[in-house]
Amino acid sequence: MSGNDAGGKDTGGKARLDVQLSCPAPVGTRDRVVLGHGGGGLMTNRLIEDVFLGAFDNPWLGTRHDGAVVPLGTARLAISTDSYVVSPMFFPGGDIGKLALCGTVNDVAMCGARPLYVSAGFILEEGTPIEALRRVVSSMQAVAREVGVQVVTGDTKVVERGRGDQIYINTTGVGLVEAGRQVAPNRVREGDVVLLSGDVGRHGIAVMSAREGVAFETTIESDCAPLASMVQGLFDAGVDVRCLRDCTRGGVASALVEIAEVARVEVEIRDDAWVVEAEVLGACELFGLDPLFIANEGCLVAFVAPEDVAKALAVMRADPAGRHAREVGRVMKAERAEVRLRSSLGTSRVIELLSGEQLPRIC
Amino acid sequence: MSGNDAGGKDTGGKARLDVQLSCPAPVGTRDRVVLGHGGGGLMTNRLIEDVFLGAFDNPWLGTRHDGAVVPLGTARLAISTDSYVVSPMFFPGGDIGKLALCGTVNDVAMCGARPLYVSAGFILEEGTPIEALRRVVSSMQAVAREVGVQVVTGDTKVVERGRGDQIYINTTGVGLVEAGRQVAPNRVREGDVVLLSGDVGRHGIAVMSAREGVAFETTIESDCAPLASMVQGLFDAGVDVRCLRDCTRGGVASALVEIAEVARVEVEIRDDAWVVEAEVLGACELFGLDPLFIANEGCLVAFVAPEDVAKALAVMRADPAGRHAREVGRVMKAERAEVRLRSSLGTSRVIELLSGEQLPRIC
Repeated sequence: MSGNDAGGKDTGGKARLDVQLSCPAPVGTRDRVVLGHGGGGLMTNRLIEDVFLGAFDNPWLGTRHDGAVVPLGTARLAISTDSYVVSPMFFPGGDIGKLALCGTVNDVAMCGARPLYVSAGFILEEGTPIEALRRVVSSMQAVAREVGVQVVTGDTKVVERGRGDQIYINTTGVGLVEAGRQVAPNRVREGDVVLLSGDVGRHGIAVMSAREGVAFETTIESDCAPLASMVQGLFDAGVDVRCLRDCTRGGVASALVEIAEVARVEVEIRDDAWVVEAEVLGACELFGLDPLFIANEGCLVAFVAPEDVAKALAVMRADPAGRHAREVGRVMKAERAEVRLRSSLGTSRVIELLSGEQLPRIC
Repeated sequence: MSGNDAGGKDTGGKARLDVQLSCPAPVGTRDRVVLGHGGGGLMTNRLIEDVFLGAFDNPWLGTRHDGAVVPLGTARLAISTDSYVVSPMFFPGGDIGKLALCGTVNDVAMCGARPLYVSAGFILEEGTPIEALRRVVSSMQAVAREVGVQVVTGDTKVVERGRGDQIYINTTGVGLVEAGRQVAPNRVREGDVVLLSGDVGRHGIAVMSAREGVAFETTIESDCAPLASMVQGLFDAGVDVRCLRDCTRGGVASALVEIAEVARVEVEIRDDAWVVEAEVLGACELFGLDPLFIANEGCLVAFVAPEDVAKALAVMRADPAGRHAREVGRVMKAERAEVRLRSSLGTSRVIELLSGEQLPRIC
């Protein structure tokens, strides 16, 4: 079982093949961690189910959301955590610091919360230039200021050379969920419309290009951006937002499959509905990658009530990160928990999670 | 400037010498991260001041407490984060999982809060045995259950071999601070009594012994333990707790110096007041280490009102982690922000933070 055997040229067939080949059984006691366990696909899910969910048994962890919404006195607190290990740490359109703030703040927003505070834990490798750390921290603060969150507490650890990779960052974010607001997979129902806020695949391809030193005609920039104000805009406009998910590790496809599985609904998306920039598409063809499974860092899917679609799209398109926002699919009868991709020719196929990892250390 | 030149045989003199030799100026732009930046001493503080405090400018980060206490609606939330990189990850008396839960939950408790929820972010090195991860997670859950906190959200990343060291864990904890409760360095005042809850130096020596393969007559076990119920006991008993700090990285000495500096008070401690187990003392003499600067993971200093000393000691001694609790010092006139160690012969010397690191990767 290896994380490197998860290709993705032909999403549907290949992904299903991986499932059968690589995940016949739960993670065994003699197994070892492989890169695929960090890919956000089936192997990650299996590890979470086998090792974490069994031990940390509580209703919040079980919701499989981007974060947890927990009671705190009379309020409801959203809390989400992510560690960032992206390589290289500087890439077109961002760096690990910008990513660490956007990613976690976005996850808090996806819980329907207003992000307020962030903690930052650094694991630094001996020999890392202080100047690089300074740049990264400055990027974090720029996002924090833009979003209106405060980095209120932190920690720094240093490990020897060869025990890290310059800078790893954990950020944990907390926010308040307004009374009565419910944004979660279990609110998704038949007839809901699926909106996608941006073009797909840019973050993953930007990082991979920087890592492999591949040059395209124009530089592909990561879409890394904060999404909290777009989300707040949806609530302010009175849109009935059923569920939100940012399309990070595992891409748009994984986000949709996870929601469909938890919500127990069939989601149908149209394969001509989303935008992929020409350079990104070219890179995907070159490397045999499926853009639908490539990480984005400034793009979300929103499940909204059908009567609110026009209002929601107007809000999304008014946001700098949402100019490509469009309707991409719909929740069909709740018979099967799956995502179907319908082509313009009328054929359809099931999208499943990849087994392992298309691109390791993308976030 | 190296983190390895910070010895500690003769605490006072050597530490002051280090200060002059190693920290003549702020961290420069051409400098690189060294192990000493993670030691919890002067170099860590310099890095925090130079790189982090300047960027993340807000009143909470500036309090230099173990965590931040922030407003959340009508409530007050305590939030604290720590990444754990201890090597080896299993050691007598605990493992990285137990440490990751105790450490963060204790930090939340030191803010005067009741710990409620914890997030857990894992950075796993390719090749790590899943069984080791299972043991570590099980240790985390055992502490969570004991303390009554819930691990509600998490994240897993995987890095290639040689880019980590099996398991790194970030935990971030949140808790509620009761209305009106203030526990912070700025509440410390002249006449306050300093209590120490446990014997000193055990965690650091236990980890170092496991790492170096040094065997003593009896195995030295880490003191790693949750302290939240002891802290709650102090509040329940009506003790006026001015400030709390667990004596982790940098040991009892660093905890006291940091509080004295923020509170701008002189703290005098007696050099015969605390307990060091014979085996720990022997190990310290063997390795030329000062036990007062060695990390503990189940030991706190409490600054309390003088009239509450007896009550506080009774509460502390009733706790399994507090059986060695005793009065170790007192806050003198608020003339100089420093800690003085008074010997039984009547001499006294100033204790200062070490420059770098006595023992790297102890937590």
